[in-house]
Amino acid sequence: MIRVTVWNEFQHEKNDEKIRAVYPDGIHGAIAEFLGKEEDFVVRTATLDDENCGITKELLDETDVLFWWGHVAHWRVPDEVAAMVRDAVLSGMGMIFLHSAHHSKPFKLLMGTTCNLSWREDGDYERLFVIDPGHPIVQGIENGYFRLEHEETYAEPFCIPEPDKLVLIGSYEGGEVFRSGCCYRRENGKIFYFQPGHEAFPTYYDKNVQTILKNAVRWAAPEAPRKVLDCPHVGRLPY
Amino acid sequence: MIRVTVWNEFQHEKNDEKIRAVYPDGIHGAIAEFLGKEEDFVVRTATLDDENCGITKELLDETDVLFWWGHVAHWRVPDEVAAMVRDAVLSGMGMIFLHSAHHSKPFKLLMGTTCNLSWREDGDYERLFVIDPGHPIVQGIENGYFRLEHEETYAEPFCIPEPDKLVLIGSYEGGEVFRSGCCYRRENGKIFYFQPGHEAFPTYYDKNVQTILKNAVRWAAPEAPRKVLDCPHVGRLPY
Amino acid sequence: MIRVTVWNEFQHEKNDEKIRAVYPDGIHGAIAEFLGKEEDFVVRTATLDDENCGITKELLDETDVLFWWGHVAHWRVPDEVAAMVRDAVLSGMGMIFLHSAHHSKPFKLLMGTTCNLSWREDGDYERLFVIDPGHPIVQGIENGYFRLEHEETYAEPFCIPEPDKLVLIGSYEGGEVFRSGCCYRRENGKIFYFQPGHEAFPTYYDKNVQTILKNAVRWAAPEAPRKVLDCPHVGRLPY
Amino acid sequence: MIRVTVWNEFQHEKNDEKIRAVYPDGIHGAIAEFLGKEEDFVVRTATLDDENCGITKELLDETDVLFWWGHVAHWRVPDEVAAMVRDAVLSGMGMIFLHSAHHSKPFKLLMGTTCNLSWREDGDYERLFVIDPGHPIVQGIENGYFRLEHEETYAEPFCIPEPDKLVLIGSYEGGEVFRSGCCYRRENGKIFYFQPGHEAFPTYYDKNVQTILKNAVRWAAPEAPRKVLDCPHVGRLPY
Repeated sequence: MIRVTVWNEFQHEKNDEKIRAVYPDGIHGAIAEFLGKEEDFVVRTATLDDENCGITKELLDETDVLFWWGHVAHWRVPDEVAAMVRDAVLSGMGMIFLHSAHHSKPFKLLMGTTCNLSWREDGDYERLFVIDPGHPIVQGIENGYFRLEHEETYAEPFCIPEPDKLVLIGSYEGGEVFRSGCCYRRENGKIFYFQPGHEAFPTYYDKNVQTILKNAVRWAAPEAPRKVLDCPHVGRLPY
Repeated sequence: MIRVTVWNEFQHEKNDEKIRAVYPDGIHGAIAEFLGKEEDFVVRTATLDDENCGITKELLDETDVLFWWGHVAHWRVPDEVAAMVRDAVLSGMGMIFLHSAHHSKPFKLLMGTTCNLSWREDGDYERLFVIDPGHPIVQGIENGYFRLEHEETYAEPFCIPEPDKLVLIGSYEGGEVFRSGCCYRRENGKIFYFQPGHEAFPTYYDKNVQTILKNAVRWAAPEAPRKVLDCPHVGRLPY
Repeated sequence: MIRVTVWNEFQHEKNDEKIRAVYPDGIHGAIAEFLGKEEDFVVRTATLDDENCGITKELLDETDVLFWWGHVAHWRVPDEVAAMVRDAVLSGMGMIFLHSAHHSKPFKLLMGTTCNLSWREDGDYERLFVIDPGHPIVQGIENGYFRLEHEETYAEPFCIPEPDKLVLIGSYEGGEVFRSGCCYRRENGKIFYFQPGHEAFPTYYDKNVQTILKNAVRWAAPEAPRKVLDCPHVGRLPY
Repeated sequence: MIRVTVWNEFQHEKNDEKIRAVYPDGIHGAIAEFLGKEEDFVVRTATLDDENCGITKELLDETDVLFWWGHVAHWRVPDEVAAMVRDAVLSGMGMIFLHSAHHSKPFKLLMGTTCNLSWREDGDYERLFVIDPGHPIVQGIENGYFRLEHEETYAEPFCIPEPDKLVLIGSYEGGEVFRSGCCYRRENGKIFYFQPGHEAFPTYYDKNVQTILKNAVRWAAPEAPRKVLDCPHVGRLPY
């Protein structure tokens, strides 16, 4: 079983009726709903307004793959919590950053860059093209691409380290392009950044998006026991 | 001085009046024309119908950066010549592959993959977006992108090894995307693949294209003396 | 079940009594022996003196992971067979190149470089250090390294493209170092180069070597259906 | 002219007579001494006990390449100063991290990992092997390696992101190996990590070390105007 935790900031859905209409149970609820149907996943959720921002050491220890959606309240995640999440990834926890989580504290800590990008919010359609058709994350995507009727436009330059593997490129109605599916490994942990998922659009109900996120869970799940390497003083090699 | 050789298959321009109208002196002529205005470049040209396909060991030894444009006659370049070009790159010669040279023998030898892609020829406009604004190859490109009124559409998946550095992504009127500017280093040599340049369109007269190709020459020029490493039997380290 | 084929040149073991004493059933036999004990592997072998050098299209189609050991007779593998092996990898077959297979035709085709290195044969011991302790290929290696009492010394520079992931570095009694475990992905296929395995030494009986090679099979096994991408003319995106 | 700033923690040399005997003018002094002889460099120094830890926004703006040596007092560099240094790198400033600066705040911020390693201090000799002989940083190193009579042993695993380019591997008298010369690019800035330089040994007087550090300055110097990308709201593409 893969133990999945879906963390969501959960602010828009509480404070904005229009967003609540799209995600009545929160974005985390919508994601947990379709992930929960997979027989090899055990799914729970956590949100910013939960105790300790929803993140504890115990939760991270018991999570194989963590989803993260945040937008207006990145600043409310304390630096210590962000560092704890980063450290869990470095020890081997898989992590999937969604949409505006490009500016979340854990993502920026793991990337080491500003993670800036350009954006506009005009409800353009987006096409997502498969760059690497043999990659496990895009298995089940037919015909090489899929289309979302409305998404927020994220545009290059996206200020990230060169991805270990670029899996998807998005292009928008207005012509912009974006590296929309990016894979990284950092120490023992795997990281997937996935661009779609603006709160105002029903992106997480899309079958192709769901296929990718389910694949991403299996791809990001730890391949080895979680382990924190420290910086030991050692003796001479015995042999 | 950087010694540049522009190699062109030079078939379309001879055999097709419409193409000749676009490039009366051949694609190589058009490229040599604008490169030749740079004070630090010495430029010569070579074409497929020249003796030995225009490529000799001496020419390669005297070339710092080689351009390669080919399309319908890749097969006419003998395997030995292609291998000689590859070996020059591995020794440190810079190389710039243009457009349909994605299927040239030297490019395929250097990549180790099929270098396949999808394509259509509808005269779409193309926008080329700068992914890495600090890269030397895109200095002088304003506003983050430029547009070509007509280009052949090359679409992903493009079957290449993950680029060391992705510098440009193209998107077309019809929505497709393509990794249009890709940097590699192989042994001592630098390689730049640049997608625009269909023979029927005046791409190589475009100022932004010219800026990129001039930058690419300076980027790809050898940073160290050319050197072929062999596979020597060695003694124990003396010290 | 993972279908494994162990291909071996099988010349030293036939022609040299000392080598035969180490590997009476050939290097392929020794490798097939320990792989065959894994419940999820089906193992067969092939050698250079078999019909068609032991390699047919059918065999490749039915192989999930191919091992390759060669040394003195690389030249006897026809270019067409080498290209067929490369193409199988690009379609998704996993491949593990052992020791002197760095100079085999399929490896050189896939890398695009000379794959040269420096070498000496003094029976030095070698230590192999785990660089990436969370990588699936090194699970089960205790204490961060292991030692082989005698190996052929392979020394840098090793003329390969930068590995996607460097997993092991070897160092020898005489002080040299070598990137001894290198991971690549090329189109749909995964490639692992593993340096130990000189014919004169009992390397393939070593428990740690066996652990690594068993892990490598599971790592390299296809993650998606085998697929050859071609270079299609396409219509406009329908949607 | 390349404007170089050599920042040194400068604690050991003040507080420990034995270290002062090796570097009477501080490590920064020794480095500035040999760099200062290069006609294309303008060199200044800064240390932890200077005002604002020796680092101001003005200094960073006027620095093309920054060296960083630190060990026992990483904690004394305020987080804000470390972030300012990181941001200067992201804007295009080159940076060279020396030896125990693997644990400095700016390096850890830029890498996003723990940057842990194993270590012992037995005065072993170290050999540094050139992995990439065509790389600008190792031009002038003869015979493929050089030896330092005494260095602190740093051993793998070194918990860093896969380097963009691995240039040097070190091996020690006791057999350990280490990725001793690692190149990165992060946004607009180039980063070089170089392992030798324990305070108790005269490493920075070594001619080969000096050659590498001089090369590294020229390699890391900005190739484009310094630029901070932010995260703008943009309008539709005008064209």
